[in-house]
Amino acid sequence: MHIDLDATFAALADPTRRAILARLATGEATVTELAAPFAMSQPAISKHLRVLERAGLISRSRSAQRRPCRLNAGPLQEATAWLAAYRDHWAESYQRLDNLLDELRATEETAAGEPAEAEGGDRA
Amino acid sequence: MHIDLDATFAALADPTRRAILARLATGEATVTELAAPFAMSQPAISKHLRVLERAGLISRSRSAQRRPCRLNAGPLQEATAWLAAYRDHWAESYQRLDNLLDELRATEETAAGEPAEAEGGDRA
Repeated sequence: MHIDLDATFAALADPTRRAILARLATGEATVTELAAPFAMSQPAISKHLRVLERAGLISRSRSAQRRPCRLNAGPLQEATAWLAAYRDHWAESYQRLDNLLDELRATEETAAGEPAEAEGGDRA
Repeated sequence: MHIDLDATFAALADPTRRAILARLATGEATVTELAAPFAMSQPAISKHLRVLERAGLISRSRSAQRRPCRLNAGPLQEATAWLAAYRDHWAESYQRLDNLLDELRATEETAAGEPAEAEGGDRA
């Protein structure tokens, strides 16, 4: 299945749709069951479900009378992977900054007359 | 800082904005620098930057002439946390399904004449 990150993130940008996904994470449910906790008409819920379905986040049985909705994990995994890759990069930036601060601190200590020990002697 | 998940996910629902965030993960950059890799006018890039700024994903120095943009990790961490909580739940559903399948398999083996050992005797 082709996963469209634009559609995934756009679908996640609504509290009702996030609540529907959280509900479906516990198991499949009908439109009536999904609508129950919200002060919202069934057509309004159906509209949110269509957004989730187009984004590939949920699928609905075509044959059964009840047509229960179920969650598809794929797009959520892709979204998580994008954010995780990104967070790693961000963490690395912090690590580089930490290393730089350590170096600056070592240099300052040397300049202040602290014994440089082995660190200063490494440079040829 | 108040983090609005709706605004975060909406801001992420665009490939140019995701590319800008990926670029800023490597360090701060000016609007000109951010616009360079895109076949897009500077005003178009500025519009994307305003969306990212309103979502709290980036901030811009008010005082400096260059006004470089920098990344704010907070909203991305919140978005990752939401997805992670969700994924855990999803993984649990799979675990429950696995357990159920194991039980069914054990029952079938018993029905097929395999020695039932202790399992069958547990029911009072």
